[in-house]
Amino acid sequence: MGKTFCRYVVLLSMKNPLVASLMVAVLSCCFAPIESWGQDIQQQAKQYFTPLPAVMESAQNPVTPEKAALGKLLFYEPRISIDGTVSCAKCHPMSLYAVDALRKSVGNTCRENPRNAPTLLNAAGQISAHWIGNRVSVEDQAKQALVGPPSYGMPNYASVETKLRRSTEYAALFKKAFPDDTDPVTADNFAKAIGAFERTLVTPSPFDDFLKGNQAAMSTAQKDGLKLFLATGCVACHTGTYLGGQSYQKFGVTDAYWKLTGGDKPDEGRFTVTKDEADKYRFKVPILRNVAKTSPYFHDGSVDSLQAAVVIMAKLQLGKALSEEQAASVVEFLSALTGKIPEHALSVPLLPSGL
Amino acid sequence: MGKTFCRYVVLLSMKNPLVASLMVAVLSCCFAPIESWGQDIQQQAKQYFTPLPAVMESAQNPVTPEKAALGKLLFYEPRISIDGTVSCAKCHPMSLYAVDALRKSVGNTCRENPRNAPTLLNAAGQISAHWIGNRVSVEDQAKQALVGPPSYGMPNYASVETKLRRSTEYAALFKKAFPDDTDPVTADNFAKAIGAFERTLVTPSPFDDFLKGNQAAMSTAQKDGLKLFLATGCVACHTGTYLGGQSYQKFGVTDAYWKLTGGDKPDEGRFTVTKDEADKYRFKVPILRNVAKTSPYFHDGSVDSLQAAVVIMAKLQLGKALSEEQAASVVEFLSALTGKIPEHALSVPLLPSGL
Repeated sequence: MGKTFCRYVVLLSMKNPLVASLMVAVLSCCFAPIESWGQDIQQQAKQYFTPLPAVMESAQNPVTPEKAALGKLLFYEPRISIDGTVSCAKCHPMSLYAVDALRKSVGNTCRENPRNAPTLLNAAGQISAHWIGNRVSVEDQAKQALVGPPSYGMPNYASVETKLRRSTEYAALFKKAFPDDTDPVTADNFAKAIGAFERTLVTPSPFDDFLKGNQAAMSTAQKDGLKLFLATGCVACHTGTYLGGQSYQKFGVTDAYWKLTGGDKPDEGRFTVTKDEADKYRFKVPILRNVAKTSPYFHDGSVDSLQAAVVIMAKLQLGKALSEEQAASVVEFLSALTGKIPEHALSVPLLPSGL
Repeated sequence: MGKTFCRYVVLLSMKNPLVASLMVAVLSCCFAPIESWGQDIQQQAKQYFTPLPAVMESAQNPVTPEKAALGKLLFYEPRISIDGTVSCAKCHPMSLYAVDALRKSVGNTCRENPRNAPTLLNAAGQISAHWIGNRVSVEDQAKQALVGPPSYGMPNYASVETKLRRSTEYAALFKKAFPDDTDPVTADNFAKAIGAFERTLVTPSPFDDFLKGNQAAMSTAQKDGLKLFLATGCVACHTGTYLGGQSYQKFGVTDAYWKLTGGDKPDEGRFTVTKDEADKYRFKVPILRNVAKTSPYFHDGSVDSLQAAVVIMAKLQLGKALSEEQAASVVEFLSALTGKIPEHALSVPLLPSGL
């Protein structure tokens, strides 16, 4: 019964996080005695969350070692951008958990991107890439980046393909990764290779160990934070395997978001894609995995401190005034989401010559 | 006798590479019969070149594991630059053999640097960093980069130190690297740590194996190229452990360099530092290690092809017209200078939080 009810709450949360948060609060109260009956926070957590998969698979773009290896090279390749300075690694350096620590990313010839660069770690498991649903997958994001004016800035896909074809080494690697293609050096295959690499960027964390049954994987402070995370209602949106990334929600349910974040002029979010009034100020719910490492926060990178971001979110989305102590407790839980970046993503590939 | 004579030629070459080249040519003729007497190209090469050391030591900044480890982190750290985008790794990514493949590097807020970024691999063994002798060591270069307007662009060293001190993690690492300092988080120690890391960036190549006695380490084509390299007189300047990096020479002995390179407006080189007329158009002789991987070439990055660069150099410096075939042969030799980047330099460090 509890499980079904939880699912109902989660479903409801997709529609209206405020209503959902209230229900989660009620639910938490119900759960309190249950916990005292022996069902602990671990069981509660399992109702909402699941551990990370080994790879974030896609039927459209199955991950192969050859594709992922090529994708890793291309991830670091700046010579196919209009000014030779932009690669995926520019805005998503692994040294900073695949973010650039800027409010908004800077692309070719210093063009500012409209929004903050989300981490690529665990990104492929989400409903879309970026913030507003105009990039339907990591593959789509990679492809569009090539011609995006503030990213690679190339005039068209053909110009990228021409650049890549200069290198016999790349030609051989594309052939190996896409053996059935007669002409494998294409922007589409660039996107598939990058996507395959990104689908391997999974970062198992202490929280995953905890979900799998290891009570000792999280500290008491982290578990207390998790309880508060559930009780406050954060879980209404930040749920599932990635603690987010599965829905679009209005940023600022109780008030205009920019009044609290102090960011720059309001961003209409998903409305700019759909032109549907209901989508005004709606953004994809960001995932919380590695959130302790991916400052600054929000679509405009307007807030530096994670604790401040937690306070703002509770107020804006759930109408709750968390004390600094409570927010610190939630931050404790969030630190358990910092995962291990896979070894292959922490080694630098040597790029082909002749480009 | 041969050895003393060679040394004399090398000494002369410091003064005037054209005279030296003629003497090297004469010397090569003398050597031809010697070779037939059993002293082969390997012996000749040993007269001019020595294998790389394990580490490029410095009495002023002894390399310790703690310093080098901190230096590696700082090498990747963009958050201490004025716009948060510049780190050493920006212009010197390991994926491209520690160059950026641009004609001239681009620093903070898209400011163009005055000259092409030389590779940091094997850089610490040279008489100075950069092109014109205004950076006396890799440490000096690292420190000056922090306040260089087209690099990190920080207003002063204190502002860098303030940023670094925000991170308790960095504070602990600086203390570990500089245990005798009461206040170790300084720009000077930033420079020493980066320098220590750079002093480990040694890339042993097939040429080093060859110099150590392994005849099979180089192909016949590479050895033929080496013979031509010596006979043409390139070795007059590109000599020693690093095949360059030990003297300043006028770029364009037989003609104005820009007539052949087609680069932008003439750069007066070391003259801008010393204001000595004799230093006009003089630049540090670049090292040739990994030169096959560090296109584009020359201080202004004006030439993309290594073979073209070889033809231009022979003409401009030595007054010799190499055929394309001869230039290709020299390029064959130069490919034997592509070395192995040490493992520790090919793994990405995870940067401290809280900056």
